[in-house]
Amino acid sequence: MFYMDGKLQYPVRVEKPNPIFARALQQAIGGVEGEIRVCLQYMFQAWGCRGPAKYRDMLLNTGTEEIGHIEMLATAVALNLEKAPLSLQEDAAANPIAGAVLNGMNLRHILSSGLAATAEDANGVPFNASHVYASGNIAADMLANATAESSGRALAVRLQGMTDDPGMKDMLGFLVARDTMHQQQWLAVVEELGGHQAQLPIPNSHPDSAEHARFSYAFFGHDVSGMVPSGRWTEGASLDGKGTFSSMRSEPLGGEPSLAAPRPDSGAQQEQGTHGAPPSAANDAAARKQGRPA
Amino acid sequence: MFYMDGKLQYPVRVEKPNPIFARALQQAIGGVEGEIRVCLQYMFQAWGCRGPAKYRDMLLNTGTEEIGHIEMLATAVALNLEKAPLSLQEDAAANPIAGAVLNGMNLRHILSSGLAATAEDANGVPFNASHVYASGNIAADMLANATAESSGRALAVRLQGMTDDPGMKDMLGFLVARDTMHQQQWLAVVEELGGHQAQLPIPNSHPDSAEHARFSYAFFGHDVSGMVPSGRWTEGASLDGKGTFSSMRSEPLGGEPSLAAPRPDSGAQQEQGTHGAPPSAANDAAARKQGRPA
Amino acid sequence: MFYMDGKLQYPVRVEKPNPIFARALQQAIGGVEGEIRVCLQYMFQAWGCRGPAKYRDMLLNTGTEEIGHIEMLATAVALNLEKAPLSLQEDAAANPIAGAVLNGMNLRHILSSGLAATAEDANGVPFNASHVYASGNIAADMLANATAESSGRALAVRLQGMTDDPGMKDMLGFLVARDTMHQQQWLAVVEELGGHQAQLPIPNSHPDSAEHARFSYAFFGHDVSGMVPSGRWTEGASLDGKGTFSSMRSEPLGGEPSLAAPRPDSGAQQEQGTHGAPPSAANDAAARKQGRPA
Amino acid sequence: MFYMDGKLQYPVRVEKPNPIFARALQQAIGGVEGEIRVCLQYMFQAWGCRGPAKYRDMLLNTGTEEIGHIEMLATAVALNLEKAPLSLQEDAAANPIAGAVLNGMNLRHILSSGLAATAEDANGVPFNASHVYASGNIAADMLANATAESSGRALAVRLQGMTDDPGMKDMLGFLVARDTMHQQQWLAVVEELGGHQAQLPIPNSHPDSAEHARFSYAFFGHDVSGMVPSGRWTEGASLDGKGTFSSMRSEPLGGEPSLAAPRPDSGAQQEQGTHGAPPSAANDAAARKQGRPA
Amino acid sequence: MFYMDGKLQYPVRVEKPNPIFARALQQAIGGVEGEIRVCLQYMFQAWGCRGPAKYRDMLLNTGTEEIGHIEMLATAVALNLEKAPLSLQEDAAANPIAGAVLNGMNLRHILSSGLAATAEDANGVPFNASHVYASGNIAADMLANATAESSGRALAVRLQGMTDDPGMKDMLGFLVARDTMHQQQWLAVVEELGGHQAQLPIPNSHPDSAEHARFSYAFFGHDVSGMVPSGRWTEGASLDGKGTFSSMRSEPLGGEPSLAAPRPDSGAQQEQGTHGAPPSAANDAAARKQGRPA
Amino acid sequence: MFYMDGKLQYPVRVEKPNPIFARALQQAIGGVEGEIRVCLQYMFQAWGCRGPAKYRDMLLNTGTEEIGHIEMLATAVALNLEKAPLSLQEDAAANPIAGAVLNGMNLRHILSSGLAATAEDANGVPFNASHVYASGNIAADMLANATAESSGRALAVRLQGMTDDPGMKDMLGFLVARDTMHQQQWLAVVEELGGHQAQLPIPNSHPDSAEHARFSYAFFGHDVSGMVPSGRWTEGASLDGKGTFSSMRSEPLGGEPSLAAPRPDSGAQQEQGTHGAPPSAANDAAARKQGRPA
Repeated sequence: MFYMDGKLQYPVRVEKPNPIFARALQQAIGGVEGEIRVCLQYMFQAWGCRGPAKYRDMLLNTGTEEIGHIEMLATAVALNLEKAPLSLQEDAAANPIAGAVLNGMNLRHILSSGLAATAEDANGVPFNASHVYASGNIAADMLANATAESSGRALAVRLQGMTDDPGMKDMLGFLVARDTMHQQQWLAVVEELGGHQAQLPIPNSHPDSAEHARFSYAFFGHDVSGMVPSGRWTEGASLDGKGTFSSMRSEPLGGEPSLAAPRPDSGAQQEQGTHGAPPSAANDAAARKQGRPA
Repeated sequence: MFYMDGKLQYPVRVEKPNPIFARALQQAIGGVEGEIRVCLQYMFQAWGCRGPAKYRDMLLNTGTEEIGHIEMLATAVALNLEKAPLSLQEDAAANPIAGAVLNGMNLRHILSSGLAATAEDANGVPFNASHVYASGNIAADMLANATAESSGRALAVRLQGMTDDPGMKDMLGFLVARDTMHQQQWLAVVEELGGHQAQLPIPNSHPDSAEHARFSYAFFGHDVSGMVPSGRWTEGASLDGKGTFSSMRSEPLGGEPSLAAPRPDSGAQQEQGTHGAPPSAANDAAARKQGRPA
Repeated sequence: MFYMDGKLQYPVRVEKPNPIFARALQQAIGGVEGEIRVCLQYMFQAWGCRGPAKYRDMLLNTGTEEIGHIEMLATAVALNLEKAPLSLQEDAAANPIAGAVLNGMNLRHILSSGLAATAEDANGVPFNASHVYASGNIAADMLANATAESSGRALAVRLQGMTDDPGMKDMLGFLVARDTMHQQQWLAVVEELGGHQAQLPIPNSHPDSAEHARFSYAFFGHDVSGMVPSGRWTEGASLDGKGTFSSMRSEPLGGEPSLAAPRPDSGAQQEQGTHGAPPSAANDAAARKQGRPA
Repeated sequence: MFYMDGKLQYPVRVEKPNPIFARALQQAIGGVEGEIRVCLQYMFQAWGCRGPAKYRDMLLNTGTEEIGHIEMLATAVALNLEKAPLSLQEDAAANPIAGAVLNGMNLRHILSSGLAATAEDANGVPFNASHVYASGNIAADMLANATAESSGRALAVRLQGMTDDPGMKDMLGFLVARDTMHQQQWLAVVEELGGHQAQLPIPNSHPDSAEHARFSYAFFGHDVSGMVPSGRWTEGASLDGKGTFSSMRSEPLGGEPSLAAPRPDSGAQQEQGTHGAPPSAANDAAARKQGRPA
Repeated sequence: MFYMDGKLQYPVRVEKPNPIFARALQQAIGGVEGEIRVCLQYMFQAWGCRGPAKYRDMLLNTGTEEIGHIEMLATAVALNLEKAPLSLQEDAAANPIAGAVLNGMNLRHILSSGLAATAEDANGVPFNASHVYASGNIAADMLANATAESSGRALAVRLQGMTDDPGMKDMLGFLVARDTMHQQQWLAVVEELGGHQAQLPIPNSHPDSAEHARFSYAFFGHDVSGMVPSGRWTEGASLDGKGTFSSMRSEPLGGEPSLAAPRPDSGAQQEQGTHGAPPSAANDAAARKQGRPA
Repeated sequence: MFYMDGKLQYPVRVEKPNPIFARALQQAIGGVEGEIRVCLQYMFQAWGCRGPAKYRDMLLNTGTEEIGHIEMLATAVALNLEKAPLSLQEDAAANPIAGAVLNGMNLRHILSSGLAATAEDANGVPFNASHVYASGNIAADMLANATAESSGRALAVRLQGMTDDPGMKDMLGFLVARDTMHQQQWLAVVEELGGHQAQLPIPNSHPDSAEHARFSYAFFGHDVSGMVPSGRWTEGASLDGKGTFSSMRSEPLGGEPSLAAPRPDSGAQQEQGTHGAPPSAANDAAARKQGRPA
């Protein structure tokens, strides 16, 4: 169950309201790198957590923190919109030189929300909850969370670079710091569970016999030249300590796929043949392909 | 530029076609854990790659491999659908005991694609390319890729457990192995670049002065009881070696947010007040809240 | 800022786990009538609230309550999945008579989440935050909220009717009661603000002169027979007390729309004409239409 | 069945074509507050109407009117686009002072539709039919419709304020009036059916015994301070006349949720434990949480 | 402007209600091959029609017909749902042998719409208006319409094959016939405008000089074997009479793409280099790629 | 299986980077007329191809070509972004006269991708794979492909008109040519299979008896005036040679639809009646409709 106190986790000040920056901030609310996503992601991971309860607790704490981050950003958007032009005339008059502001706004900030934040990204695309990753596998989830906080911190850093409003820079300095910690904490769980050696491959509970192990540590080259890019991933021990990296040119191990002809009344054209008469019979490779053009 | 040879990377055999398993396999094609996603993700990362070219090469090789994985899975779906019922009567007749098969099918496999794969997940939800993560930051992207291969391998393992068709188990044993390698290779890049110590926090190019460092290594507790879950993330050196983990109870550092009253003609109700007369004036905290109920 | 205590607002018990009911419950989590929607909706209304602060407080309290409702439902989904079949063979063996269970499951409950809730509806369609309605107009928002709680209570009632698990019926009895209250509370705000008389039309701040008032209280009939359905909306005083209901047959007040021909190089076909030569010149009504067929 | 006459319900004139206003008008076509939505919503409610046929008739009449509103707005968009720049050079030349126009356009108006309307909102997000609310419950539907017309009228008012084109102001004055009537007519149905007293709670057909009535009229406070916002919703008779409003501090009535450990081969990590050994055994509350930090 | 008469274009009878067939019919309502799509598509093409007015008239007539098709199908869905199970017990009792019906239903038919149609496809995915194709080019639009009616007729044929209800077969026999006509009518426009010879390539208004004509009639082979599939598209006059088909092996005409290194403070990792120092300098092809593996 | 060579199919040069043109180019990557769509569409058609194998080969070749087109466009986007402003100050300083550039950018090009392409359209809406049309019917698919290449070529032509960068004009001249060929090749398949005469109606495998043939070649007029637009589609032989075009005024062949009253406990209001008492009984047409208003 949840509680609130109506106060902001960190002060939100806007000295020079800028409706374009309001649009940019939306990415941190409803974007795939944003706070609705991490909030719901940590919550759903917690609510579906099967395993040591301390990870559930940890997820719940941080998921709860993230609600407050959405709150801060939504407040920042509303404050950045307070001087926004509401009409095309007003806009043209106010910005004869630097370019029309209203042109670049998320118009839903005027038309739909009355100068307040929406649950959308910087392009006005609504948040889509398919981005709530909760796999039931603690290691996969921790990587997903570290990923979210990495692109999230990149976003916060870029937003900080975009503005010169001191209040906004200050607020973003706080959010950048929290993203630093959150990257650390999810990766710290992986370390606590034994690190790459113990945790990889994810899931680590699959019987080895069910995996075709000769392909498990080989980098496949698909360059027609036969070259493959070399690096840590082509030589040395694998990160899980169970194999040795190598590289090989990828070759087809299977043949051409062959599907049965369409069944009668399945909605195909007559010319596509009928069931029982495999299409390849009348169309073998020699017949259907020209020789190599000069 | 790209080429093909029309052959399968690995053989795809289906001994006992099962339309429900065809639906399940769709998750590996068009699901967020699936192959369209990783294919496009590695491609877009490669095409936008700014930095050492070998990472672009590596991404392009593996992105190209993934097209072949979609091909294998699409073939597997089509083969699993070859005996599917096309009518409700046919279905009821064929499965008097085990339950109607058609009931559980992705009906678009009959109605829209003529017994072939679609670009959807196991629930028939079309792939949405917002899941193509390409951040312009190599470390964030590598974590995103390791995440995708972790949930992808969990999916492949679960699909392998769902079927008892030997051909399908064999094909999935190959895909599981490739996911093992792909997890390794993305994390190997992080290691090659210096590991957590050098790469965290992501982005590692942000000036420290822009971050409120006192919040960068502290776990925030949001439990009203004041308890915080302890672990690697609450004590010891941080993973980047720049700080020490601690925990603190989260307290609001900001006050209640205060927005201006709606502007005239902005589409609010009259009762919401007018610009210049801040709503809080007539509604201070004392007046607007009851005392604590018994 | 927000807090939690890790406990459930109301007990969640499942005596007979049923994976099909788990799928049904998803509608109350990620469906348009569900709890993620109302949670975010009340939060965004609160965070963008311009006007008397007590409405912000009220929204924030109830938005916070709704997080706990998602938590209850996510727990209920996970508990209903605990005995779910994980393989097609297991499924066929367990349910020879009553029909295959796995066929009807949200397969992502097995493949993606490891037997836990997802942020989706009963069809596996992810929640889409375009349903977060926050208009900046208090009256419009209150109606939106009453709407959400009405379809939400209809959903809870239908879910209660679908199950015979005592624990689930009990939990839903609580949620039905909360939906009752929430319907009341949003409509109570409208009453407090003066009811229909004062609040309609929404927004009530628009100058009358900007509205073509002769169409403001007339029901338009579009039935070719000329009949119009009569009721409270065709006679008597309007609900805002400013007019009298009437009905009229709808007639076109405008003519046929006339667009300019496509501009050169705008990507049209040559046959669509060129700018300056209006297409209607060569295509007047007499020429382009046949007489009435017998 | 449906008919048309090719004429506009109300004249659509544009004196000063403005491509930015064309973008804004899209919100009234394909936005969640727009006309495609209400058109389909009233139609689907009519087509699924179970109950007195006059409501079906009414819905069908107004749904049919709304098609004509989409037509008016689509015409307005096309007319506003007739002078739009088609190239970046043209744009820069034409607007040296007031700011680039093309920058702010919905580029699909040039690239995809040839200077005509699209089925999108003001941000270019396509209409999503999940917004077609038709619940099978007449009262829930009437509230949904009144909501749609409230946010719709707010949108029309805001669009009217955004433009100074006399033709556009005139057309919007008509649409504002129709929204006024439509708000009235849906709420008039609720009044005709007995008003709040008879209709609440929605659905009003649920047996009281299935609802935990002690929570049905209580406002729950979730503020950690224990304060609750007071108003009409915390005192006096409830709107349905069946209860009395009160307020109470929300307390958890359930305990911590406890899920079983993951099942073998369900794709979890080994460290998450095994079925039968509940994770809480090794992780009781005392062990897993630190004391309160200073 | 639009009108209705409340009657069905063709009778809709259901003798044996079948909730699974109700789900299947949804594809014809809200699927990409369905009637909402063609209705809106023809309407938007008409409303944006720039060119001979008779095509606008034609589009408007058929778009209006399609509303009535949605009406027929929505009625068919509602009638197929009238005996549907509402609870899991009811379902298990009613279908001990043929398999659970409720398992296979679109649960929103029970939970969200009260046994009526939704604006979704057969998988419960809501209609997305990005499928409304209206390009501003009459020939492109006619092909798009013929495409929609082709997949639409395939769908109707497949639905007809799925059911043995005489009423449903009869209704679908009407819809199949209308799809036949609609395929014809859109292609007849292309013929009227001069057929392939005059209309191709689409758009036919582009100056030839802007196109690299030597690639305009050549089939490109991408098979590593050098083989290309031969057919009408590799020999003979092109369909527009302006060229001759040939085939050639595709070869890269460009080199490797080279992007600048990331800019400082753009959110990349330090290791990705800095602006001015092109990454390729330190990573030439020889250095970054291994030789061909054996 | 697939291969690559890391080179571009055609050179991509950008002389004057323009971030607004980068946004426009996105339509050709992730728009419904774009290259991700055709790439996946041809691939899925190939992988599901049931019938003569040469069509599978052809689809696979061209699908493979299209990957390289995405690559070219993604490179073009990245190059157009290389001088983009990263901050609002930088933007204002650089463009005092011509208007702010950053205002018009896809802000995700800065915030999410680090100045590289995304898998989105020109409005920042992510690609949605529901646009991958693969019907299992070769003729329907060929029309779908010709449609995609028609709107795709219209898009390429419009993009070419939008820019005056010589490199971009050159690259687009290549893509326009490829679209010309691709239109030809898909329509050439229809010709090879016998053209309209043999292929229509699509599917051509449906028994004539299942279609109500008297409606198969009649244009239906829905204009209340009784007029119908005449053209090739109202007279002469049908394109399939099986009928003669005619026109008729559309009349309802069915009556008013009549649904049963809601079932008890199905979540309707009490006032909607009960099962067994058909609502029309108490609401016949005479009673429920007013006479014709003056």
